[in-house]
Amino acid sequence: MKKIKFSNGVNLIALLTDFGNRDGFAASVKAVILSKNPDAKLIDISHDVSSYNIQEAAFILFSCFSYFPQKTVFMAVVDPGVGSKRLPIAIKTRNYFFIGPDNGILSLAAKSDGIEKIVFLGNKKYFLKDIPTTFHGRDIFASAAAYLSKGFSVNKLGCALKKIEETDLELPEIKKNEIKGAIIYTDKFGNLITNITGEQFQYFLKHNDNFSCILNKKKINKTYSFYNQAKDNEPFLIEGSLKFMEISVKNKSAKEFFKIRGTGGKVIVKN
Amino acid sequence: MKKIKFSNGVNLIALLTDFGNRDGFAASVKAVILSKNPDAKLIDISHDVSSYNIQEAAFILFSCFSYFPQKTVFMAVVDPGVGSKRLPIAIKTRNYFFIGPDNGILSLAAKSDGIEKIVFLGNKKYFLKDIPTTFHGRDIFASAAAYLSKGFSVNKLGCALKKIEETDLELPEIKKNEIKGAIIYTDKFGNLITNITGEQFQYFLKHNDNFSCILNKKKINKTYSFYNQAKDNEPFLIEGSLKFMEISVKNKSAKEFFKIRGTGGKVIVKN
Amino acid sequence: MKKIKFSNGVNLIALLTDFGNRDGFAASVKAVILSKNPDAKLIDISHDVSSYNIQEAAFILFSCFSYFPQKTVFMAVVDPGVGSKRLPIAIKTRNYFFIGPDNGILSLAAKSDGIEKIVFLGNKKYFLKDIPTTFHGRDIFASAAAYLSKGFSVNKLGCALKKIEETDLELPEIKKNEIKGAIIYTDKFGNLITNITGEQFQYFLKHNDNFSCILNKKKINKTYSFYNQAKDNEPFLIEGSLKFMEISVKNKSAKEFFKIRGTGGKVIVKN
Repeated sequence: MKKIKFSNGVNLIALLTDFGNRDGFAASVKAVILSKNPDAKLIDISHDVSSYNIQEAAFILFSCFSYFPQKTVFMAVVDPGVGSKRLPIAIKTRNYFFIGPDNGILSLAAKSDGIEKIVFLGNKKYFLKDIPTTFHGRDIFASAAAYLSKGFSVNKLGCALKKIEETDLELPEIKKNEIKGAIIYTDKFGNLITNITGEQFQYFLKHNDNFSCILNKKKINKTYSFYNQAKDNEPFLIEGSLKFMEISVKNKSAKEFFKIRGTGGKVIVKN
Repeated sequence: MKKIKFSNGVNLIALLTDFGNRDGFAASVKAVILSKNPDAKLIDISHDVSSYNIQEAAFILFSCFSYFPQKTVFMAVVDPGVGSKRLPIAIKTRNYFFIGPDNGILSLAAKSDGIEKIVFLGNKKYFLKDIPTTFHGRDIFASAAAYLSKGFSVNKLGCALKKIEETDLELPEIKKNEIKGAIIYTDKFGNLITNITGEQFQYFLKHNDNFSCILNKKKINKTYSFYNQAKDNEPFLIEGSLKFMEISVKNKSAKEFFKIRGTGGKVIVKN
Repeated sequence: MKKIKFSNGVNLIALLTDFGNRDGFAASVKAVILSKNPDAKLIDISHDVSSYNIQEAAFILFSCFSYFPQKTVFMAVVDPGVGSKRLPIAIKTRNYFFIGPDNGILSLAAKSDGIEKIVFLGNKKYFLKDIPTTFHGRDIFASAAAYLSKGFSVNKLGCALKKIEETDLELPEIKKNEIKGAIIYTDKFGNLITNITGEQFQYFLKHNDNFSCILNKKKINKTYSFYNQAKDNEPFLIEGSLKFMEISVKNKSAKEFFKIRGTGGKVIVKN
């Protein structure tokens, strides 16, 4: 599937930011890209990342990047440290290009695809302006994305770097009769995504007669394959579309049910 | 107008879901479509349908589909029953294609355009994955939409069905000197859209000297052609852009003015 | 940069409205455009302008239009006066086309680019329908945008007008040792954008040893080049990406910090 190329030889640019959808920020980025490459095809992943939340953006990018066509250029910008020592970078991976600040936002996706080359975006020739303002998304990253989408080599954009800042997903602690996991993301429906994979949970079930899962002092002891199999107001575990176990309540928000705020909450699976 | 075709022979795909704009759900759908058909042209109708609200999505689709170019492929997914007995379907109508779960979401629009063929999306060859996860939007519907947009016959996607689940708009009860209607939708501006058509209201006015309209025990006895003709804080009836009578307050939210929550509220027009 | 044209000879259409992203309003507009010009390339600037807020939309358009490629057609619709005496217009400027209601929404951007021609959209041949409903965005403006994007002369759309409604940015009062400015916009991050330009502020600093800035009885006496240079919970002035001075708090909302609601608040810079 991924072998298909765009018929006009131009690659897709996918955008992920915390710029919101009301101000002119995302529009300025798109305008710069289309000024540099009128044939670029743009897709918004999201501009609704919680302000300054690098971890959240890293997970969203990780959750969807692998479905995009080969050679897609991902520009991901959540950038509280703009103007500080954090570097603007581009990464060439096995199948894709990633552009953004070197603050961890790109790491989950890029590492998962296999990093081949990291470049510090230092070549001002490819900036929008010689002296960028506080808005690197428009002045540096959008311009770099446009050049990559036109087929420019990533090497032209600046000199090589050896490594990137990493944002790792906390891994669950797995014992024979216990898994200590955590909530790593909550989605629009209020599903609570844990860091426990479906495989890890199946492995636990194979070696234990039963399971109960504790979150915020409440117990979950059902697991289903589809949301609709559950009873009303009954929390349950389900393997979600990202292969992680999710805590859900049918047609309701598990986030509200369990009174969860943000991520990080502990999830204990026991016999 | 509708006779114009896309110059590259590829049709438009219009997306309507309750996936929200923050998570990677809508992006995954678009990524799958563009991986299967790099030339597809994508339009977001909305991803902000209230979670699980099939009725709301059905109305939004109904409100705009007929303005799209011929052969547009509509993919509409609000899918609380994913994985249950509800079938994934595609519908060929007089001018368009519709793809989504068979739970009523497609029915208002498809019936209005004239259903010509209904197909159960059972041919796994056209799935993204042999065994779809909980996310049929990405694993089944996006893939089917891509194939239809490339000109594949709807017959290839699976076997024929005789009928679809229907979501009908409640019809108003019309007597010579009374119309019993209901609020069927509230828009971003707080306008309350009723199921009483402009034609039905004009007919009432022709046979009655006067009118008063009751909603939540409050009276409305003005009607205008444009919002701007009304006085401040004066509720009024107006024929909206969908040809239904709407209850509005100039530059304010009628929804807040009448303290309306959701849809279904009774609207009585009397002499 | 701006000289690059779209390879297919078709221009970009950029959309800015208060239609929201849930209803079918924006989708109907796009559908009409693509029905009239299947090759049009559409970019959403925003559909999340606060309902009826012409001033806000005028500023958003002003903040991003100049980054778009030459010949972009901007359709901006916030239209509380739809159907009243306000005229539907198109403006040809030095580099762009602007379409919308003549209520001030277009004026900041169009004047900044240099107005060359103003046309009253009176030629019904280019309407979607002979008798438009309450929804001019769909019935008049979208259609006009499609024709302009195909290269139709603006003269065909109606007769010439001499001037447009203006929405001017309030200018700061500048004295040697005092600037009296105002908040003109607040962005998604809660940054408070003032009408004092970076140049004006630098001029003040050149002629004064020191500065203190008063907003809502609170003092600001720091200025930085990048957000990250500030300490936590310390408000500061910074030249933003639009060349205006902004009041910010690092990784926080200055809007909440200063308890600001809306725009218009006075900002006094003193020695």
